[in-house]
Amino acid sequence: MAVYTEVSDEALVAFLAGYDLGRVLSFKGIAEGVENSNYLLHAEGGQFILTLYEKRVKESDLPFFIGLMEHLAERGVVCPQPVRARNGEALGRLCGRAAAIVTFLDGVWLRRPKAIHCGQVGEALARMHEAGADFALRRANALDIDGWPPLAAAAAPRADEVAPGLRDEMTGELAALQAIWPSGLPAGVIHADLFTDNVFFLGDRLTGLIDFYFACNDSFAYDLGVCLNAWCFEPDGQFNVSKGMAMIRGYEKRRPLTAAEVEALPILARGAALRFMLTRLVDWLNVPAGAKVTPKNPLEYLTKMRFHQRVVSARDYGRLA
Amino acid sequence: MAVYTEVSDEALVAFLAGYDLGRVLSFKGIAEGVENSNYLLHAEGGQFILTLYEKRVKESDLPFFIGLMEHLAERGVVCPQPVRARNGEALGRLCGRAAAIVTFLDGVWLRRPKAIHCGQVGEALARMHEAGADFALRRANALDIDGWPPLAAAAAPRADEVAPGLRDEMTGELAALQAIWPSGLPAGVIHADLFTDNVFFLGDRLTGLIDFYFACNDSFAYDLGVCLNAWCFEPDGQFNVSKGMAMIRGYEKRRPLTAAEVEALPILARGAALRFMLTRLVDWLNVPAGAKVTPKNPLEYLTKMRFHQRVVSARDYGRLA
Repeated sequence: MAVYTEVSDEALVAFLAGYDLGRVLSFKGIAEGVENSNYLLHAEGGQFILTLYEKRVKESDLPFFIGLMEHLAERGVVCPQPVRARNGEALGRLCGRAAAIVTFLDGVWLRRPKAIHCGQVGEALARMHEAGADFALRRANALDIDGWPPLAAAAAPRADEVAPGLRDEMTGELAALQAIWPSGLPAGVIHADLFTDNVFFLGDRLTGLIDFYFACNDSFAYDLGVCLNAWCFEPDGQFNVSKGMAMIRGYEKRRPLTAAEVEALPILARGAALRFMLTRLVDWLNVPAGAKVTPKNPLEYLTKMRFHQRVVSARDYGRLA
Repeated sequence: MAVYTEVSDEALVAFLAGYDLGRVLSFKGIAEGVENSNYLLHAEGGQFILTLYEKRVKESDLPFFIGLMEHLAERGVVCPQPVRARNGEALGRLCGRAAAIVTFLDGVWLRRPKAIHCGQVGEALARMHEAGADFALRRANALDIDGWPPLAAAAAPRADEVAPGLRDEMTGELAALQAIWPSGLPAGVIHADLFTDNVFFLGDRLTGLIDFYFACNDSFAYDLGVCLNAWCFEPDGQFNVSKGMAMIRGYEKRRPLTAAEVEALPILARGAALRFMLTRLVDWLNVPAGAKVTPKNPLEYLTKMRFHQRVVSARDYGRLA
């Protein structure tokens, strides 16, 4: 939750002068989104989200993200739509930062999703994978397995402050995964961060996906592994196999997994758990003074990683052979 | 900015079952308001703010605040309106906290108000003072001059870490004000915290006042002193006499100051500066681990306090004799 950049009245008015949205009726910072500054903008032209991209997002990646949202929406994946200024550009500058206005999506993110929601998330993920197939731009996954060693190295000196033995455990896990990491799986554009706060529902019906700022090209089944981690564990750390079954079934309704993907799923889910454990650990050890965000607990993902290590096959996630 | 309490889906649905607001369409934490957790609630019945009262607000004070908002609105002061549940109550409980739903007010708070806005704030303040005259409930000002010594005592041991000599300066100022603090001035219900983020505008037109959670009974001119501090200084610490003139003129359009109030104004404004310096200083020295709020700089109010010390009469604020 955060607003990192305060937008002055003059700056906002000057920025909006380039758009056809009418007069500002309300403008409030939103306590969601860890990476960027987000404002809810109510103008005569409707409700929008105004995002200022903070330093964690590379400006050179923005055309990929913005273009992807437009591409997906044209193919029926409900997601925020970039609003173009009168000059035709969806990206502008505000308060020294790249900024964009996107349409507001109704819906609520679920603090405690149930299996019925996990099924819809699986299906929406598969739809996104299909819809991204003919997207022209490419973006490498900066946080794929080649991106983990620098994170582990950065966190190693102080990792044992967070949990005794963590340094050795994560180093060993990284080496183990490097030895068995699959390649050549079906790949394309993935969301890579489809956590509960990035999926909106109205009642029990999924209404849209948001926050494409980690989207990249990588294997589809890895994205499913991210979602199994994010959606299918209970607060006590137990994997809920009903949720896993619903999610994988939902996914395969649209896009059946190949035999290679099914076999690789436990390794991919393990890797996804390590990836989020590592980024959370680095953040945890580097909370800046005056931080506006409480870092997320890396140990939650250590628990998940250990679960995946014990998984024998995708059956353990609820996939029927 | 803050959301201190996360509201689960089940808890929200259960809470809203007591209201006639229809289905939830959107529910987002707002990065505004330092004291409480605020959510923007969009339901079929309209846009609302859902507030969870955190520990700084005494529950026994809530009937005063809620009742005051209803009382003022009935008399034409635009402010959020508490929404009553089907059981007739405007105050409920959610996630272990007292909670209320109020109507959403269109408008934007001004990061850089001009004299034209200060004039409207002065007038709105006077209207509020008038409208509160027949409000039945009373609430003492917990942060009046009798509330300052405990704050000064709490901050004293480490005050010089914030600015060399601050401990002596604030102790001396407190003693000086105690010796000359006026009594018997016209009094009634005051806002006591009418900062820029608590007044909404559409374009250059004031549309409403929010955040009555410091409202109390105290002298009207002290409230004007709070506003002179909050609205009429430039970012470089200079008092802007055009803004002061506009604010006092706006106020006196509705409610002319008595001779005693005019004479007391510099002392009241000095006291108001000390009050905000002290509470900010205590917050500054007590930032809890994992704080979601960046404390406000107490030195801004030290500069203002020193300005008021040099003021000879209300003429220096722009009031024509």
